[in-house]
This record gives sequence, structure tokens and C-alpha cells, in this order.
Amino acid sequence: MDIRTHTITLETEGFNDIQDLTPQVAALIGGEGLVDGSVLLFVPGATGGLTTIEFESGAVSDLKQAIERLAPQGIGYAHDARWGDGNGFAHVRAALLQPDLEVPVAAGRLTLGTWQQIVLLDFDNHPRQRSIVCQLRGTFDV
Amino acid sequence: MDIRTHTITLETEGFNDIQDLTPQVAALIGGEGLVDGSVLLFVPGATGGLTTIEFESGAVSDLKQAIERLAPQGIGYAHDARWGDGNGFAHVRAALLQPDLEVPVAAGRLTLGTWQQIVLLDFDNHPRQRSIVCQLRGTFDV
Amino acid sequence: MDIRTHTITLETEGFNDIQDLTPQVAALIGGEGLVDGSVLLFVPGATGGLTTIEFESGAVSDLKQAIERLAPQGIGYAHDARWGDGNGFAHVRAALLQPDLEVPVAAGRLTLGTWQQIVLLDFDNHPRQRSIVCQLRGTFDV
Repeated sequence: MDIRTHTITLETEGFNDIQDLTPQVAALIGGEGLVDGSVLLFVPGATGGLTTIEFESGAVSDLKQAIERLAPQGIGYAHDARWGDGNGFAHVRAALLQPDLEVPVAAGRLTLGTWQQIVLLDFDNHPRQRSIVCQLRGTFDV
Repeated sequence: MDIRTHTITLETEGFNDIQDLTPQVAALIGGEGLVDGSVLLFVPGATGGLTTIEFESGAVSDLKQAIERLAPQGIGYAHDARWGDGNGFAHVRAALLQPDLEVPVAAGRLTLGTWQQIVLLDFDNHPRQRSIVCQLRGTFDV
Repeated sequence: MDIRTHTITLETEGFNDIQDLTPQVAALIGGEGLVDGSVLLFVPGATGGLTTIEFESGAVSDLKQAIERLAPQGIGYAHDARWGDGNGFAHVRAALLQPDLEVPVAAGRLTLGTWQQIVLLDFDNHPRQRSIVCQLRGTFDV
């Protein structure tokens, strides 16, 4: 077994921006030749999250609304009262959705379902650049 | 360290069906002789999830109600409006609960608490067969 | 690659007690000399959870309120009706927040953001001692 750690970088819009990371993750697996093992994904920073979903506009919109119900904007956050950041809702959403996701890899492929994609969720209140740690672990053919 | 990937298959009913996977996972650990390491569990498909709970009917019922509050049936989902699947609530629940769970193994045993079981959650809107990827990683005695 | 499993022990107060584990986890990484790999954290028991957050009193208070909304005290739980434990809310919160968290380690450091800490959440309804499994995996310099 071996470990190879990469970073995926992308531009995000904030406010529940949800982006499909599957092509970038699959490209790293193919490029490194990971055959059997897993990919651990992690978002540094306290206002992002990772999960999987069928990445089509309907389900993505439904998820955004559910997250808005979990930690609504505009209900008043102690974080904002203390620091004036205005992104208290983002901190709560990130803590609930969590920054890590791990997907097994078998025979060189992510074991995702056909209609299941890996997504980054950016909860912050402004556009930013995000770096996602993408750690491949297992047996490599090169 | 080594990696051995298996699949656990079971029949599910949908609509927050929650099933205890602990015996099957423990049997794989024992059968393979995993001594130290971990088990990564992953549900392929965008309408399932994994977590742990005290698997008794009261707590299981309470969790089902909490999930119903998170993403109620009958509030209207964009996924359903677009695709007519009728399982928009299942997609949202799966994205929130997430498809992966990892449990350490030490001295040949899952490090679960006494009253803590590994459970699969099936959020879909019909019975189906589920396959859960069960990847053992670590040192094996055989 | 190698695996080294430790336990972090601490006293918790229950009722959404949230404690920063980052110093203990970082100390284990430094003490063992883990260079590249990851740390898998896991809370045995069905009334605890793990996540990350900016560990300042505002955001922590905001998260506690969001968890109270997810599974309020005082709405009646089947677990309590059946067993009289009075901690049905804790079981539901733990199942939703989940007992596992994994953070990559690169060049000897946790890949956390600057304002991101690893936290234990204790949802139970009384003070207790908690043991958290902390499994280091990867390449070590000693």
C-alpha cells in the first residue's frame, strides 16, 4: 500500500454553491494508476463540506433548500455578533455537513452508483478559491 | 498493510428502512482475519446512507422521525418536478446523511460501543436490493 | 504504510458539550512521527459525534442551537418511553452527526484550515468520561 496526496483547486461562489468534483477525482485515480484502495477527500477551512448526490439541477436545488432549513440565513448568529463576519450560517452548515468523504476504489474505479457524484459544498458568503485535499491510498500500477 | 474489498448484499424496503449491518461486517472481519486497521463502508447509489445507532426499536423510530423532519415527504421537490421519480426526499436525505462510514478495528474487533450498531439507511421510495462496499484495510493474520 | 492506534480520554458534560481535540490529535501525530497519511477518529458509544468547526464561542453556540433544532429536547422520544433513559434526543443527534472523522496528514501536519478545529460533541444527558479512538495510518519517521 502507498499514499499519494494531491490538491484539487476550484473557484466557488459561496451561498450553497455545489460543484461536481467527480471528473477531477477520477482523473487523479487514472493518472496515478490507483487500482485498489480509496480516495479520502477533505476540505480545509470551516465553511465547506463534501457529500454525494445525483448531480442534476433538481436534486441540487432541493439539497440547497434543505440546508437553508437546517441553518437559515437571517436568524441571527452569535458568530456574527462577535466577529461581524456575516457567515455564521456557513460555519453551522459546514459543521453539520462535515469536511471529509471517503470513496472506495476497486479495479481502478470509484465505487459510486451510476447516478451518484462527489460534490463540494461551499457555504461561505462570498466567492473564493477552494483547495480540496485528495489523498489516494492503496495499490498502484505505476 | 493490505486491502480486501467485499460486498454485502441485502433486501431493503425504502422509506427510511434502517437495518443493522454489524453482524455481516463482523463476520467479514473474522473471516478475513483483520487484526488492526479499519473497515470502510460505502453505499453506491444516491438514496442510501450509513451511520451508527443503538439498534433498538425506540431509537430507530426516533431517528426516522428526525429524518422526516429534515426532508419531509410531500413538500414538493424539484427533482420530482423534473424527472417524475417521486423520490426527491430520498436524494436530499442521502446527501445529508452521506454514503460513507469508517470504523477502526483493534485486536480483531470493531471499536464500537456496547450499545452501538452499524446501520444502513435506505431512503428510496420502493423496495430494492442494496450492495454495500465493505473494504477491510490493515494487517491480517491469514 | 503502518497503523498505530491510540485512545484520547477526556471528561465531558453532556447536553451538546463541544470540546476541541486538535491539540491532543496533533500531539499524537508529532509523538509518533506520522509524516504522510491520515488520522481516523471514532467515538465509541451511541451518544457522541465528531466534526470540525472554528472553535470560538460564537460559532460553537450557533452549532449547539442548530443541533437543538435538529432533535429538540422535550418533544417525546420512543427510546425514552421504552427504556426511561431520558436521552432519546442524544441518540438521534449522534446518529445524524456520526461517530467518525478522518483528516489527512501531509508533511507531518493535519491539513486543517487555519481557523478549523477537530471537535468532539457529547450529546448525552449527564457528565461522563469519553474515550476517542485515534488511529494514525501512513508513513512514520520513527
